Amino acid sequence: MPEYFICNFLKERRSSDAEEFPKKSMKYNAIVGQSGGPTAAINATLAGVIYGAKLSHEIDTLYGAFNGIEGMLNENLCNLTELFTDNRDIEILTQTPAAALGSCRVKLPDPESEKGKETFTHLFEVFQKYNIRSFFYIGGNDSMDTVAKLSKAAEFYDYPMQFIGVPKTIDNDLCGTDHTPGYGSAAKFIAASMQEVLRDCAVYTVKAVTIVEIMGRDAGWLTAAAAVPAILSNHAPDLIYLPEVPFDMERFLSDIEENFKTHPDVVIAVSEGIRYADGRYVGEGTQSNVIDIFGHKYLAGTAKALEFAVKERFGCKVRSFDFNLPQRCAAHMLAKADVEEAIGVGKYAVRCADQGISGCMIGYERTDAPYTISYRPVPVSEIANQVKAVPREFINEAGNYVTEACLDYLLPLIQGEYPTIYQNGIPLHFDLKTPNLELNKFKLR
Amino acid sequence: MPEYFICNFLKERRSSDAEEFPKKSMKYNAIVGQSGGPTAAINATLAGVIYGAKLSHEIDTLYGAFNGIEGMLNENLCNLTELFTDNRDIEILTQTPAAALGSCRVKLPDPESEKGKETFTHLFEVFQKYNIRSFFYIGGNDSMDTVAKLSKAAEFYDYPMQFIGVPKTIDNDLCGTDHTPGYGSAAKFIAASMQEVLRDCAVYTVKAVTIVEIMGRDAGWLTAAAAVPAILSNHAPDLIYLPEVPFDMERFLSDIEENFKTHPDVVIAVSEGIRYADGRYVGEGTQSNVIDIFGHKYLAGTAKALEFAVKERFGCKVRSFDFNLPQRCAAHMLAKADVEEAIGVGKYAVRCADQGISGCMIGYERTDAPYTISYRPVPVSEIANQVKAVPREFINEAGNYVTEACLDYLLPLIQGEYPTIYQNGIPLHFDLKTPNLELNKFKLR
Repeated sequence: MPEYFICNFLKERRSSDAEEFPKKSMKYNAIVGQSGGPTAAINATLAGVIYGAKLSHEIDTLYGAFNGIEGMLNENLCNLTELFTDNRDIEILTQTPAAALGSCRVKLPDPESEKGKETFTHLFEVFQKYNIRSFFYIGGNDSMDTVAKLSKAAEFYDYPMQFIGVPKTIDNDLCGTDHTPGYGSAAKFIAASMQEVLRDCAVYTVKAVTIVEIMGRDAGWLTAAAAVPAILSNHAPDLIYLPEVPFDMERFLSDIEENFKTHPDVVIAVSEGIRYADGRYVGEGTQSNVIDIFGHKYLAGTAKALEFAVKERFGCKVRSFDFNLPQRCAAHMLAKADVEEAIGVGKYAVRCADQGISGCMIGYERTDAPYTISYRPVPVSEIANQVKAVPREFINEAGNYVTEACLDYLLPLIQGEYPTIYQNGIPLHFDLKTPNLELNKFKLR
Repeated sequence: MPEYFICNFLKERRSSDAEEFPKKSMKYNAIVGQSGGPTAAINATLAGVIYGAKLSHEIDTLYGAFNGIEGMLNENLCNLTELFTDNRDIEILTQTPAAALGSCRVKLPDPESEKGKETFTHLFEVFQKYNIRSFFYIGGNDSMDTVAKLSKAAEFYDYPMQFIGVPKTIDNDLCGTDHTPGYGSAAKFIAASMQEVLRDCAVYTVKAVTIVEIMGRDAGWLTAAAAVPAILSNHAPDLIYLPEVPFDMERFLSDIEENFKTHPDVVIAVSEGIRYADGRYVGEGTQSNVIDIFGHKYLAGTAKALEFAVKERFGCKVRSFDFNLPQRCAAHMLAKADVEEAIGVGKYAVRCADQGISGCMIGYERTDAPYTISYRPVPVSEIANQVKAVPREFINEAGNYVTEACLDYLLPLIQGEYPTIYQNGIPLHFDLKTPNLELNKFKLR
């Protein structure tokens, strides 16, 4: 049995002469949506789907749904085939961060529930109205849940359509793939920014601790990228803590003390999701004790909690901060490897749909020495609602740094500098909602 | 009278045959130091001084002082002439952020005070020991104060030497120059990152306010750069507040309300230094009311204070963050215009010293249409301890945005992408303290 399945309904329908659906030889339409949090490469995958649809002998029109499944329910669609006749526009779309079609956080109901019947009946009516037979959903874990439910519903309602998930997440925590599109660029931004922060911290001679919080609630993949400067510089973070290893505050403080013996400026990278052995998030302590001017409990975050503890213990200069939104949308720092793979996975998704493959996510399969990537469909049921953690062998025994094996895994993913097109000193972005925008200075009154 | 002065002592000494100083025809040595906060282009200026010294017929050896004036007092020096025989090394130095020589925050005593006599006598002994006759100090406002005091002291102690300040600051708040080296690159990073954050904020349809805090305690130059995306996109910040205009919380909240009438996601850029009409910093309110787990008053910052107020008024999703250290050290995003000018000003400083000019800072003089920059020495006494604010005509009447005139000023400074050299997927940095570093994986245990 193959790892994915060929949509039976489609096979049947295509081989029949049933009037309600076009024959195999006739072209049908496809739809693509984006979902979940932004990444710098999510539109590269959209570009890949657009390229793929242009090359497809099966697809006539590719529709884009604004705000994912929401746009499909509301028929808030655009015609991507008409919008992207010029390859330069697709190139600009490729370098535009965050879902150009908009995103959503909708969780579909169970197809067999009462609510599900209503939702899916409506959805399939929309699909039928636009003669849509292929569905591409670019997203993370929750989006794969959407793909799984749609596949199940199509079977349940006997609707002939292929549903394909295309991964994206900076978190790199999806199962069924060596890594995820978007991770390489985010990791490159974090590695480069960390190296810069390390230079910044090294200019003074006073005793100081700098704590940098990096995204990753359940997996430390992004934080691991902070170690990249260690490969060729003596400016590397001194300590790195991932959520995969239980955090011990006393151990953390003695780790810092150990570092102070050799140099005055200690720089630390931590995942936002580090937890104590009892499961409490390190940031929780702060949340419950800091109160703002309005009496609200103030969520200060993980690094801030550590800052308080370090200040209390050492009394030295301590600062903490995070890379915040830029780490997931810094498209001025795209990894060429990531963008090329992100385009490739989008194209491949269309080829799979053309072959009648459904209910799958397209994963990366990797070979090393030299590093290469191939694509393969993975049953979405094996992926949805699971988290791929950083393996223990990628973290040192003390639990306060990553290993060379981790960097061997990570390095190929951040290689290459994407040749970004600039205008007015900043990267050019494509605005899908107002694509033919004239110079717009309306804000400058 | 010229705007700068020729060091009289030097002229005298050079024309005499006094044994203690070399004759005019003999080469002498020079020293360069860096001071103040990091920028992404401060080493481009150091590279310029190195290039300049190589071309100079007057300078034999160029010494680098580690940690500015501290290194001069402690004779913690390096020989830059010997270290930089290869132009590729200078190129890598150019793209390395934050003072490669290290920085300091030392404020020199008054030359005529008791403490001053001790300090300057020692300093001039060091200079004499190394036959140093030219002094270059790359720094901001405080560094120009150092140059002013040294010039005064040289006159007072009759020591024949030229002192030249070379500007650097991301804040762009130095007088005597159209703009400062380092500002263009920081502004480019902020403009590009702001554009990316705007894309990120636009993907959802829920009502939300995002507040981005940008560096600038006394001047809003960096925050003004957040408006650059407004030129060619409809994704631009909705509101921009600079410290030059007194902040009014009620006005701020009604500005947001006005924006909610047309779109759900409101994005705001604020300078860290915005103040109420009575002079209180907006961040102060938070400082005095938030208490951490150890009972400390917690400095939450300007954006956080605004976040609390917006949340209280609108009850919608509100988030705030700042670009923190990356905005001053993001050398992966150097503006080519900035780097070229930063190198040029360093070279020019050496030429001025060779001509016996002293007691000055090198400023940029600008012509527009087309934009060009020339260099000129400005008496340091006119510059030190002053702040150049954003002029009122660069801010709109309502005080909640910048004007086109502001962007006309700003745009040429962020132009061009510096062709950064990468290794292992991140920019290559030059480590002045361990220049011949072998691959160093000591952190990866």
